[in-house]
This record gives sequence, structure tokens and C-alpha cells, in this order.
Amino acid sequence: MKKLINDPRAVVEESVEGFGMAHADLVDVHTDPIFIVRKGAPVAGKVALVSGGGSGHEPLHAGFVGHGMLDAAVPGAVFTSPTPDQIIPATTAVDSGAGVVHIVKNYTGDVLNFETAAEMAQAEGVSVRSVLVNDDVAVEDSLYTAGRRGVGGTVLVEKIAGAAAERGDSLDAVAGVAEGVVRNVRTMGVALSGCIVPHAGVPSFELAEDEIEIGIGIHGEPGRHKIPMEDADGITSRLLDPVLEDLEIKSGEQVLLFVNGMGGTPLSELYIVYRRAAQILGERGVKVERSLVGNYVTSLEMQGCSISVLRLDDELTALWDAPVHTPALRWGM
Amino acid sequence: MKKLINDPRAVVEESVEGFGMAHADLVDVHTDPIFIVRKGAPVAGKVALVSGGGSGHEPLHAGFVGHGMLDAAVPGAVFTSPTPDQIIPATTAVDSGAGVVHIVKNYTGDVLNFETAAEMAQAEGVSVRSVLVNDDVAVEDSLYTAGRRGVGGTVLVEKIAGAAAERGDSLDAVAGVAEGVVRNVRTMGVALSGCIVPHAGVPSFELAEDEIEIGIGIHGEPGRHKIPMEDADGITSRLLDPVLEDLEIKSGEQVLLFVNGMGGTPLSELYIVYRRAAQILGERGVKVERSLVGNYVTSLEMQGCSISVLRLDDELTALWDAPVHTPALRWGM
Repeated sequence: MKKLINDPRAVVEESVEGFGMAHADLVDVHTDPIFIVRKGAPVAGKVALVSGGGSGHEPLHAGFVGHGMLDAAVPGAVFTSPTPDQIIPATTAVDSGAGVVHIVKNYTGDVLNFETAAEMAQAEGVSVRSVLVNDDVAVEDSLYTAGRRGVGGTVLVEKIAGAAAERGDSLDAVAGVAEGVVRNVRTMGVALSGCIVPHAGVPSFELAEDEIEIGIGIHGEPGRHKIPMEDADGITSRLLDPVLEDLEIKSGEQVLLFVNGMGGTPLSELYIVYRRAAQILGERGVKVERSLVGNYVTSLEMQGCSISVLRLDDELTALWDAPVHTPALRWGM
Repeated sequence: MKKLINDPRAVVEESVEGFGMAHADLVDVHTDPIFIVRKGAPVAGKVALVSGGGSGHEPLHAGFVGHGMLDAAVPGAVFTSPTPDQIIPATTAVDSGAGVVHIVKNYTGDVLNFETAAEMAQAEGVSVRSVLVNDDVAVEDSLYTAGRRGVGGTVLVEKIAGAAAERGDSLDAVAGVAEGVVRNVRTMGVALSGCIVPHAGVPSFELAEDEIEIGIGIHGEPGRHKIPMEDADGITSRLLDPVLEDLEIKSGEQVLLFVNGMGGTPLSELYIVYRRAAQILGERGVKVERSLVGNYVTSLEMQGCSISVLRLDDELTALWDAPVHTPALRWGM
């Protein structure tokens, strides 16, 4: 195992410290317990968004803290849920009195810990609404989940709900927007290689030299099936077809197409996947109105990608286009 | 070898096609020969910037085509210089009559081909100035170079010279700004693993399980020396110390600190390197005024990073801060 780290047990702490130094204009980093808040939070009168989860998926979530997106991010240990004693102070720190929306990826640990934190924060007088992201069509239940996992679509939920909060929507309205995105986004991923959790030091799973895993989760947990290696066009169909079927996309509809790298795949390859995905959508009469290509929800150095499709309407498109200024996503300002 | 590709010989073509589809609002893609131009180019009265080089370093260069940065990018085959028959039409396509600056990374093939193209374009009535980027302090001459190689600092040259062109500077002035950046930026990189050129199918070089290469180039060509694996703080010193020494940075000066991923290294690890680099600069009394962390000048899926330091003055800082809108770098608009 070769990693650019020091003590494997200090990876999250040191990485977050560096993140805070690089983006001191945008965020404040709290270290005991660890959480990251938007500079100047709480923003008077604004509903706050808090998300979090295991580390190892960077830039998710800390990279999305800032204007028009998250007010706080709570990183757990690598691939491990953050604890309520982190989530509670993050929640109270960013509440302006207008309430807080928790955006929770559907993993058993995350769900439990955010639930506990929401109850405790509410006991302290903070109104909390929780929105569960479960966009992965690959499996119904998984190693770490009852129900579908929350994966790449999370970044779209955070961007669009963040824009709703920024324009002044109420707590119920922001939660409603987030739930609307969840209803209209689906994702499926593929792994070409495993990844190595720093303190474990061994690959979380193994793939043979000619084997890939279709429907992989973002922790290297099993997907639908292992198959022999195929070309990019074939793999793209295997990911996109179930997404479109599940979303029941029809000719004439408009979508956002998001090709997300898992961390170790060159950008050039993501564009080869994007090319075929856009062609398939075109053949079906679906209009790609917006796109996003890059490494946004990763699994350490895993090679592979996921494809997300979000059904757009004028409202979601306008919120997607709204200005955002975070370390990892920025436009309009 | 597992890659998300189809025909290994069609990698650049298909990737650029997907890139053009994803960013149709920003760029136009020409396919025969291949080059990418800014939407709406030539921009009346504006000096144009053209860069290019071997593919495999994405988002460099095509990802930096757009407002405030490049007017055209010319991708060669993977790790292979583009040819004059690509560079010439790219140059003439974006010339408004105000002239064109070629930004050329110092590799023998790139230098020769851009030189030939500049002569041919000039014969067609285009005023061309060439600026050579040679920021790599690791080696004096290399496998592919007479003199120092052009590496990570290239993105800083393109951003800052692009801002000068956008504000209306003359051809000589834009070239002068670019040369000023080159004089004030230095870079050094490390590889933890090799990378695989698609049509070759085998690693370009091998590193043992406990071995890293200090001073690596962006094509996997040899650096200063192979050493046993060290921790991130130790590696950071090995990269940053020669950079600061060569740049003769003094206490009280202001810099931009750029930690660049080679493609296969998680963002969390880049921030661990950033942390130590910023600490070292702080200990020396150097003020980190601006920062950039991420995968901007890559070597396919290579694991590793480079550290660049750019000495800032008010002029360079203002040009760095100026609005930019490209697929891979965007702010202020």
C-alpha cells in the first residue's frame, strides 16, 4: 500500500486541517469533534443544510460547504458514519432559527446517527427535517443498507436544495425540494478496481485482471454482479439502461446527465462514458439540458464511475443554475 | 489493463467528442484535424491564447478553453505532441487580427511542432508569440527535453495570461505576462505508481511496492531518484524545499500554493500534502495568499502529486482573481 499519508489513524484529521487551510475564505474547521461550517454561518433567516457521512468520498461532503450549498459537513472516519456528538454541534452551529435540513445518504449507520442527532438537536430547540438519499438502482438492500443506497445523486440533492435555502425557502419547502430531487434522480456505478482503507491497509475487495463489478456501492460493497471486462460503450449501457428504466424517462423529457469518477479513473475516460451516455439519451429522444463530469463522489482511489440521471423541470433547472461558491463546485460568483 | 475505453486507438477522438458534447455551451470541437476552440472565437480585438500537448494530462489543456483562459487547445495522441497540421488551423481559427500567443510546455516535440506551426501561421499573416513553460526544478535535461520540463505551472500561466488577454492587453503585453509567470513559478512532483498508455497496454515504468520516484515528469519519465516510501510530510519537504530554493523565496513574500494530483490520488491525500506545504511556508515567513488543490495536470491514472509555488505580486494576484469560465476552472461568472 502506498498512500500520501502520515499516521493512518490521523488521515481524516490531517486532511480536514489541510482543507481548512486551503479554503479559509470559505469554511471554518472545528476539530474536537470534527465538523466543517460555512464561513459566517449561521446566515440570518436562512434554512441551513447539514450533510455528512464516512470520509473517503471527497470532495463529498466538505467540498460542498459554502454559498448556495451546505452550511455544514460532518466527516466520519473513512467509510464510517459520523457520530451524533459531531452531528449535534454542527447542527446547532449553523441554525439561524429557521431550521436545519439533514441530508442523509441511506446507510444504516448514517441513518441511525443522524436520527439520534436530530432528536437531540430538537431537544435543544432546533427544528430539523431529514431527507434520505437513496438513488442507487443497483441493489434493493445491501451490505450496509435496508433499502437502496445513497450514492452520486447526493451532490445534486445538495446543490439544488442548497439553492432553495439560499433564495429564502422555508424549512418545509427546502426539505420538499430535496425530496423532489431524490424522487427524480437515479444512479448506478461500476468498479474496475478496489480501494484501500488507510487504517486497514488491504483492498476492501478484489477484482481479477479481467473482471469488473457492475452496480458497486461507494464503499466497494458488492453490486449486482461481477462480469468480464467490457468496452466503455458496453459498460455505459449496463449502467444507464437500468437508471432510465427505473426513472421511467420518456422521449421529450429533459435531464441532467452526471458522469462521476470514483477517484482513480482519468477524466478522459469519464468523457468517453459521457459520450456514449449522451448518445443513448439522444437515441431515446431525451434532451440533455445540463451536465456534470468529474470526481465528485469518490471511493478513495477506486477505478470506475457512476452515471446519474436527474429528471429536470424549469424549477430544478433554475435551482441548479443558481450561483454556488464552494471549494469543489462554483459558478455564478 | 482495465480502462473505460473502446478502441485504444480512438481514445483521444472519443474523449474529445464526449468533452464537446458535455461542454457545448463553452467550446466547439473540430475533428479533422482535432482541436478545440472557445465558443464565439475569434473574440474581436482580443489577443488569443493557444496551447496544446500530448493527451493524458486532462483537464489540461482542453478543460481550460473559455472566457479568461485559452482560445484553443490542441491535443496530440496520448503523451505525444500535436502536429503542425493541428496547431496551424487552431491558431488561424482564433486570431482576431490582434495576434496569438502559443503557450508551449518544454518538450522537444512540442517545441519543434509549435515552432513550425508558428512560422506557417505567420506566413498566413497571423502574428504569433511563443512562450515556453519550464517550471520543473527536478532535472535540468530529461528523456524528452533539452532544459527543464513544463509541468503543473502551465495551468497558472494559462490562467493569468488568459486574464491579461481578456482585459485587452496587446500581444507583447500578454506574452510578457506569461513570461512573468514562468519566471516566478517552480514545480516538483512525485509518483507513487506508474500509468498505462492505452495503446501500449503496459505501465510506462514500474515502481516496487515500497518505492516512489521523486522529481517525476508528467509522462512517467525519470525524475531525480527512486527512494523508499516515506510519509506525506517527508515527501512534501522533498518536493517543496527544492522549489523554494530555486525560486529564492524570502520571508515576507506572497505566493500561490498549488498542490496538483497526478490523477489516481484521492483528494484527501492532496490536502494532507497541502497542510504540510502550507506549514513549511508559514515557518519560513512566506504568506500563502492563494491556493489551488486538485487534479489539473495529470498523468492518466498515475498516483502522486506535484507542488507548485508561484511568487505573487498585486498584478499577478489580480489577474489570478479575474473571472474565468472554462470546463475545469471557473469563478466570478
